[in-house]
Amino acid sequence: MKELSTVYNFLDFAGTFVFAISGAVAAKQKGMDLFGITAIAFTVACGGGIVRDVCIGVIPPSGLTNWRYLALAIIASIMTVGMYSVVQRLNRPVIFFDALGLSLFAVTGASKTLVYFHNSEIAIILGMTTAIGGGVLRDILLNRIPIILDREIYALAALAGALVVVVGKYFQWSDNWVQLIAIVICFGLRMLALTFHWNLPVYNREKTPH
Amino acid sequence: MKELSTVYNFLDFAGTFVFAISGAVAAKQKGMDLFGITAIAFTVACGGGIVRDVCIGVIPPSGLTNWRYLALAIIASIMTVGMYSVVQRLNRPVIFFDALGLSLFAVTGASKTLVYFHNSEIAIILGMTTAIGGGVLRDILLNRIPIILDREIYALAALAGALVVVVGKYFQWSDNWVQLIAIVICFGLRMLALTFHWNLPVYNREKTPH
Amino acid sequence: MKELSTVYNFLDFAGTFVFAISGAVAAKQKGMDLFGITAIAFTVACGGGIVRDVCIGVIPPSGLTNWRYLALAIIASIMTVGMYSVVQRLNRPVIFFDALGLSLFAVTGASKTLVYFHNSEIAIILGMTTAIGGGVLRDILLNRIPIILDREIYALAALAGALVVVVGKYFQWSDNWVQLIAIVICFGLRMLALTFHWNLPVYNREKTPH
Repeated sequence: MKELSTVYNFLDFAGTFVFAISGAVAAKQKGMDLFGITAIAFTVACGGGIVRDVCIGVIPPSGLTNWRYLALAIIASIMTVGMYSVVQRLNRPVIFFDALGLSLFAVTGASKTLVYFHNSEIAIILGMTTAIGGGVLRDILLNRIPIILDREIYALAALAGALVVVVGKYFQWSDNWVQLIAIVICFGLRMLALTFHWNLPVYNREKTPH
Repeated sequence: MKELSTVYNFLDFAGTFVFAISGAVAAKQKGMDLFGITAIAFTVACGGGIVRDVCIGVIPPSGLTNWRYLALAIIASIMTVGMYSVVQRLNRPVIFFDALGLSLFAVTGASKTLVYFHNSEIAIILGMTTAIGGGVLRDILLNRIPIILDREIYALAALAGALVVVVGKYFQWSDNWVQLIAIVICFGLRMLALTFHWNLPVYNREKTPH
Repeated sequence: MKELSTVYNFLDFAGTFVFAISGAVAAKQKGMDLFGITAIAFTVACGGGIVRDVCIGVIPPSGLTNWRYLALAIIASIMTVGMYSVVQRLNRPVIFFDALGLSLFAVTGASKTLVYFHNSEIAIILGMTTAIGGGVLRDILLNRIPIILDREIYALAALAGALVVVVGKYFQWSDNWVQLIAIVICFGLRMLALTFHWNLPVYNREKTPH
């Protein structure tokens, strides 16, 4: 299973990097300086995992101790500032890897939680938190309503991925297969939602003054 | 004391449910989808308690492991979306149970903290955090200034409730009586403030450009 | 070294008080009541340290158990409300002690983290978090983009202070000297940036619609 672990590591770094890019682009558009951009990039990339680790008692949170994540956030920020036209052209790969990162973070978040507590609810909530927490923190820092709570099947795809992990644990299926299937389902759901513009229904938006 | 514990359980669920309703209504008014509404409802209902548990080292936080809270948030969200006219007519009971939830959360939050640390300050701060933390998180997510920090004797009532618990502990009065008295004081203060429109003074609001 | 410790204690209280003043002034300008002002003042003064303590497993966080910090926040709030003209005339000392508080918090935050974990990255991140976390939380609560992420060499000065602590630990220099040098560097950098209006470059602010 060594190959699989290498694949996961690559996906983890790719997902982290893409999350960092999305944070850096949003911060740059708000006119922040290089430090602010890096801070937001790091928050998006590691924020969800840090909240998860605090909630399951993994002290210190792994996002704070692995210098690779910080390095990825710094590289993403410098790229965003220095090669903005390149980053903009990366739009398609970014959406692709963002969906991959979402899937991976949801699945690894739920799995890591299950290692510490045999409780389905916390695994589902913290799997989702790992996947979408960084984006929510980014939008709080940039002073806007978290779009993740307001967008096409995004958080719901993370929910599906975490759910598959919990169900697989319940039936004691092989961890590797469960994680692979969960990632495929979450990723597929997100890509289908993007392709066909699936949305959850929204209620009386037009009737309410914002 | 079995009956008292049943009463507390009922109040706990009623308070949680009403807090969830208040979150769901606010999220619906911002035009969120069903997922966003549920996420905000859950945050209001459990956010304060989760922050408290992280600060006193109760890992995992009980708000994340008791499926009843999540179920209450989901029911509150579905009700808010599907039966909005009913929920709107619940305005009076909501204010009533919101005050009850506030009292109960302040008192149980302070009591739970005292079980872990014999320190008055942390019990008072975390009692208040349990009671008002969820509402503060709701307003941060909905991108507005926390109204709880800006409204009639609300947080102050929670402070009073937590304070009674700490004083009672100091004089070693019976826990059950102390909690009952603390709830009555907090609840009474809040209802009186609502009835007579008591407010803390506000300073130079009109003079300052926002 | 007893004298040095007295000096640090004085600086710690002065820094906490000035941070609390800055929070109280911002909250007053937003038209909050006395409770809201105190809550924001306490958040600015202790928020960064509480986040740090949660991340390194110091439970309960020391900001929640030392009544002196709460007392300082209350005094700062009452002063801000009752003697606003005095507080406004304190503008220069406030900037001076704010820079001192920043330096001290960055250095003590990084040092405290190193006591628990021998890991440079977490010490740097949490040193900065201690110094600027309270200000970031203040701006989130007041519903604006954290100015700390967007201002003259402020967070960067905190970074420099934390970095010196980590480097000093690596070479096993005397703790007291390292902390003193780190404080001087962080404080000097901040005061120089203020004097000469140093800023990190900002990218395409004018080109982007907000």
